[in-house]
Amino acid sequence: MSKSRFSEHECPVARGLDQIGDWWTLLVVREVMYGLSHFEDIRASLGISRAVLSDRLKRLVENDILAKRQDDEDGRAAVYQLTAKGADLWPVVLSLLNWSNRHIVGDDRQVVQIENAQNGVAVSELCARDESGQALRMHETVLRPGPKASAHMRGRLHRAFPPDSE
Amino acid sequence: MSKSRFSEHECPVARGLDQIGDWWTLLVVREVMYGLSHFEDIRASLGISRAVLSDRLKRLVENDILAKRQDDEDGRAAVYQLTAKGADLWPVVLSLLNWSNRHIVGDDRQVVQIENAQNGVAVSELCARDESGQALRMHETVLRPGPKASAHMRGRLHRAFPPDSE
Repeated sequence: MSKSRFSEHECPVARGLDQIGDWWTLLVVREVMYGLSHFEDIRASLGISRAVLSDRLKRLVENDILAKRQDDEDGRAAVYQLTAKGADLWPVVLSLLNWSNRHIVGDDRQVVQIENAQNGVAVSELCARDESGQALRMHETVLRPGPKASAHMRGRLHRAFPPDSE
Repeated sequence: MSKSRFSEHECPVARGLDQIGDWWTLLVVREVMYGLSHFEDIRASLGISRAVLSDRLKRLVENDILAKRQDDEDGRAAVYQLTAKGADLWPVVLSLLNWSNRHIVGDDRQVVQIENAQNGVAVSELCARDESGQALRMHETVLRPGPKASAHMRGRLHRAFPPDSE
């Protein structure tokens, strides 16, 4: 399947998926978030081929999600680190983790839990915060056309999130 | 690439990706979230083949993310609707949209924006809420082993999120 068509597509979700929508790609990002940085460690953890990992790491560096640097302790080795753009994928990983825990894994069978770092209280839901600082539940948000929306996108969003229903 | 190995894998992120980690799958979910429900409408909007869409819809129904029902107005047609599990993918789509807007699309070129439904104030970040109701920034959360974590997973999470650093 060709993905290139969608990288020019106006939908930002499609454009985001074009950079991380490969099944392995987000798992590579997760490995780095969980503290791995060397090629061989990531490969062993995921159990994938060198060729596939090489390809995904190359794309992640090209897309500025990971940065490849020299290992300070071993000048011959490379380490992969999250860029600011990559670190901002944390909500994507966390929302996927939260959904999976809730709907696939089940309450009593959890392997990884999200907690308040300060006191260990379990995180129960993801929410949003608006520019005035107000915390919003997900259903208290809507999608609206931005400045560059086409007439087609405006029509779709208007139908999906009718202004009258607010 | 075989994905079946990971559906038994303990990591909930991998298990979540196993159900929605196909590039087209999340876009199909997005189309339904944006209000489309008929096969032909979704196909035309995404511009994909009938065979690919058919396959993805079948998997989404099997995984209880979409429900297939008879169209009330046209008994011959089927409509696809989000289940409760599917509707709970909203944070995944929203976090991806937010990331894409911020790091790929750019501030002045946005096509779709996330807003407070009540007053139109822009959503600036995603956060989490713990069971006591406290809103947390993403970096104020940590991942901890759940009741079913293996020793391997405990070790990894302990290294990635050292208790001392809190």
